[in-house]
Amino acid sequence: MKLSKLVGERLKETPAGATSKSHSYLVRAGYIKQVANGIYTLLPPAQRINLKLQQIIREEMDALDGQECLFPVVMPKELWQLSGRYDSIAEELVRFKDRSDHDMVLGMTHEEAAVHAALGSLKSYDQLPFMIYQIQTKFRDEARPRAGLIRVREFTMKDAYSFHESQADLEKYYQKVYEAYFRIFNRMGMKKVISVHSDTGMMGGKVADEFQLLTDIGEDTIIVCPHCDTASNVDVATSIPEENDHIFGVKTEVFTGEAKTIDEVCSNLNKRPQQIAKAVCYAVVGDSSRIVIAFLRGDKEVNESKLKALVGAEIAIKDLAETGLVKGNIGCVDLNIDGAEIFYDKSLEGLESFVTGANKEGYHYIGVSMTRDVKPEKYVDISKVKEGEKCPVCGNPLLVKRGIEIGNIFQLGTRYTSSMGLSVTMPDGSSLNPIMGCYGIGVGRCLASIAEESSDEKGLCWPMSIAPWHIYLCPLRIDDERVLSQAERLYKRLLAENFEVLYDDRNASAGVKLTDSELMGIPVRIVISPKTLESGKLEITLRSTGEKFYVSEESLSKKLDELIVY
Amino acid sequence: MKLSKLVGERLKETPAGATSKSHSYLVRAGYIKQVANGIYTLLPPAQRINLKLQQIIREEMDALDGQECLFPVVMPKELWQLSGRYDSIAEELVRFKDRSDHDMVLGMTHEEAAVHAALGSLKSYDQLPFMIYQIQTKFRDEARPRAGLIRVREFTMKDAYSFHESQADLEKYYQKVYEAYFRIFNRMGMKKVISVHSDTGMMGGKVADEFQLLTDIGEDTIIVCPHCDTASNVDVATSIPEENDHIFGVKTEVFTGEAKTIDEVCSNLNKRPQQIAKAVCYAVVGDSSRIVIAFLRGDKEVNESKLKALVGAEIAIKDLAETGLVKGNIGCVDLNIDGAEIFYDKSLEGLESFVTGANKEGYHYIGVSMTRDVKPEKYVDISKVKEGEKCPVCGNPLLVKRGIEIGNIFQLGTRYTSSMGLSVTMPDGSSLNPIMGCYGIGVGRCLASIAEESSDEKGLCWPMSIAPWHIYLCPLRIDDERVLSQAERLYKRLLAENFEVLYDDRNASAGVKLTDSELMGIPVRIVISPKTLESGKLEITLRSTGEKFYVSEESLSKKLDELIVY
Repeated sequence: MKLSKLVGERLKETPAGATSKSHSYLVRAGYIKQVANGIYTLLPPAQRINLKLQQIIREEMDALDGQECLFPVVMPKELWQLSGRYDSIAEELVRFKDRSDHDMVLGMTHEEAAVHAALGSLKSYDQLPFMIYQIQTKFRDEARPRAGLIRVREFTMKDAYSFHESQADLEKYYQKVYEAYFRIFNRMGMKKVISVHSDTGMMGGKVADEFQLLTDIGEDTIIVCPHCDTASNVDVATSIPEENDHIFGVKTEVFTGEAKTIDEVCSNLNKRPQQIAKAVCYAVVGDSSRIVIAFLRGDKEVNESKLKALVGAEIAIKDLAETGLVKGNIGCVDLNIDGAEIFYDKSLEGLESFVTGANKEGYHYIGVSMTRDVKPEKYVDISKVKEGEKCPVCGNPLLVKRGIEIGNIFQLGTRYTSSMGLSVTMPDGSSLNPIMGCYGIGVGRCLASIAEESSDEKGLCWPMSIAPWHIYLCPLRIDDERVLSQAERLYKRLLAENFEVLYDDRNASAGVKLTDSELMGIPVRIVISPKTLESGKLEITLRSTGEKFYVSEESLSKKLDELIVY
Repeated sequence: MKLSKLVGERLKETPAGATSKSHSYLVRAGYIKQVANGIYTLLPPAQRINLKLQQIIREEMDALDGQECLFPVVMPKELWQLSGRYDSIAEELVRFKDRSDHDMVLGMTHEEAAVHAALGSLKSYDQLPFMIYQIQTKFRDEARPRAGLIRVREFTMKDAYSFHESQADLEKYYQKVYEAYFRIFNRMGMKKVISVHSDTGMMGGKVADEFQLLTDIGEDTIIVCPHCDTASNVDVATSIPEENDHIFGVKTEVFTGEAKTIDEVCSNLNKRPQQIAKAVCYAVVGDSSRIVIAFLRGDKEVNESKLKALVGAEIAIKDLAETGLVKGNIGCVDLNIDGAEIFYDKSLEGLESFVTGANKEGYHYIGVSMTRDVKPEKYVDISKVKEGEKCPVCGNPLLVKRGIEIGNIFQLGTRYTSSMGLSVTMPDGSSLNPIMGCYGIGVGRCLASIAEESSDEKGLCWPMSIAPWHIYLCPLRIDDERVLSQAERLYKRLLAENFEVLYDDRNASAGVKLTDSELMGIPVRIVISPKTLESGKLEITLRSTGEKFYVSEESLSKKLDELIVY
């Protein structure tokens, strides 16, 4: 490819709104171009990477006996009603009417389509297990697209669906996919990828793992144990509760006036947050009659994913007007709210002399005891794990990291096969809904994640296995006839030898060319200049290490074969 | 691939509503599955073909220095407003609002996105020419999807866009693409592909060619000259007008009573249709004040594409109520309809004694003369060419054929670059809107067209170059331990030797297996049976010719290498 004809421009300035290296460099180096909020065109260099990423994924999926399909982007409402997701998914699911006034959706995931593909042909247990997958465009109407290709609305995704006759068989296959995922990310050149226990979210099912690339710009919070390598998304992370002191106090009402927040109450009563039980109130989305109140220790925060799972519905912070609750003075004794669903976090267990609101304006109780005054039926885990809390597996202190979710795998169970009526006949004549797993990889997000992880202060720096081109052929001073003629000759020769070459044929300064070669991140640069001509040696520079090699034209191909390995 | 695990079923019965061989066989052989009207899942065998077709296209586009991109499926209204197509395209363009109430469209073609990709980076004439392309999912809300993958709403398409500094340069490139298209269809194994002059339709521009696979089930009508090979879509086809006799008659009003249609008037007056001038009335869509009346010889039909181009707007047959026109008695003399736009077809030229309506109930004129009584300013070509009319190039009789449009190429001009403000600086400092070409191939339609052309009464019959697998390994009587063990051994060996094998490992009858192998259309079948074991020779059958070969296990690979060529 000649750079003079390559579509896309190299920019000096960081684009407005770029919040990550990958976003900035992918725009600046002419890899992507925004068309709308969260919607990008992949320009030729990015599409070359995209195809290489897809090929790595395809090979690994095929090695797991995956069968590649192509499911529709546009699907009818009826298919999504069968699974119940037409109604349960909010605005991320794009809905529209076609010209015949039929309700359609844009696919954001394809469990329904995968089950539909198997309906009819899948009849007997001995057709199990199998896995089908696709690599295709999806659209998810994200509320807040950000960071270039990290969080977009339209994206290319590999999604795979496996079908099994038993949970044990699913688990065996799930483990194989788990291992394949690490191979995939490794082949793509990503280094800091870890697997993380995660929430099953809108997919349903019980077991799920995410694959996270650890990076400070990641939008996910991950709780990691450096001792035993246990890692979980903060949404599901747990820790061993700190022991409270079990010392009983005397319950007494005290005037606290304007003191409402934890800080204000602590200051007013000379207490620590650990000595307070705070309340957070939620409304249940779609059912205005339900109120949820979470009590937890003052130094804790509610983990809404965990609470949502207990409530069994979407929740949102409740406006307290008309509830009878007194803002800043809600407490877990003398609380009379008809029908409120009350949850007590495990952090409160053993707290027998604490502060809580007195449920009237300007007053709190001190010396409250959980076992004597509150007597909860049970304690549940509804708080967020923080750095330094104890690992639930080995008891060592946990760390908080940030990551980009580049893949996820789910044990779905029979949610989709039973709701959509997919069943097989077992050897004993009985009928069984196959047990499903599903497995996703965001291809564009991998591209951005690799850009994020491997770039440096000069620009992008692609791993060899997925670089858009391997070689940046960089003649300096093409006004020098000898430079130009060697460059043209080498370009033809390298193409003939099937090397992937980006040829910087522009009549530009050495500064511009060398800077662009670094910004674009092509792994191997070959410089031709009056100087190299005099020495009779070409100058090869590795983008990743800066290492230089000087080789004659004759031994060039051999050297390139040595360098271009993956 | 083991057939027992392959997703998709083989059916005995033709599916309801199947109107073509390809539709029927692709469903019956488990290649495609309908999800909604005009929306299909490609099951694994079809997706394997899809990928091979894409690779052929990609190689040929890259050979034309094409740069592969990926444009978005979902685009914002604003982009399509720039070109004017947001308003000019009717219901085929899906429009919806995103969660922020922003108007979006689903891409059915990507001229706007291609120009957008070049905006900003394209600055100077010396960056021209270049071509960018993508292979991607498109959605076009067709009113009448039909014939399986022949006419669908969602489809995979290769669309390419080239940019030039002069019409001459575009024409040179256009010719290269033209030739590449024949190479592509040839490599895909299609035989009866011809190029056809066509209408530019909603694309705009002046020159366009379609690539049509000739087949009786095609939905396009093509006018072909077998003598000089001129071929045109009926929408734009012309012919040399038949000479009329120039004999003058005497204009006389006659009572024709209930005679309204051409047949009735001919019968009533004892005339031939060639002696009648008939009228067809149209409304202009979106402008109720305009009426269009087309007069043409009684044996001709209106070519609405041609008429539409003359009118410069969409047209639809007019309801005559409240127009003052007398149905069945409209004529081209004494016609007083304010503001009607009247067109006279060239078939009327030289007709000097003909019948036409008298514009009053129950009466016609006979003996009307064009030059004496009508005196049209000019004659235009608004009639459909019919079989037997004279080729406009060589004068020989034309044939009418039917075809499936599998690709099209357009010389677009500057419609998109000028409306979207894309310009380059020329050597003299002036500014120029690059001249564009665009080039499409429907990948799924190619798949269906190949299925249509190459299938026979037993089923599909894929060309070697794009077959989903090359080999159908077909053990008969796998209850025979020797058969099973040879089959298993051969399957592993063939895979290890990188042959593409579909292994029919089902415990099914010979009849079922042989029938399915033919229905699925895999080019090379290897039968293993008690009989072949006895003879010591495997039986190889070519699907396309039925030719058989008997080879030993040792010489199998060599024979397969001979047979699997493309």
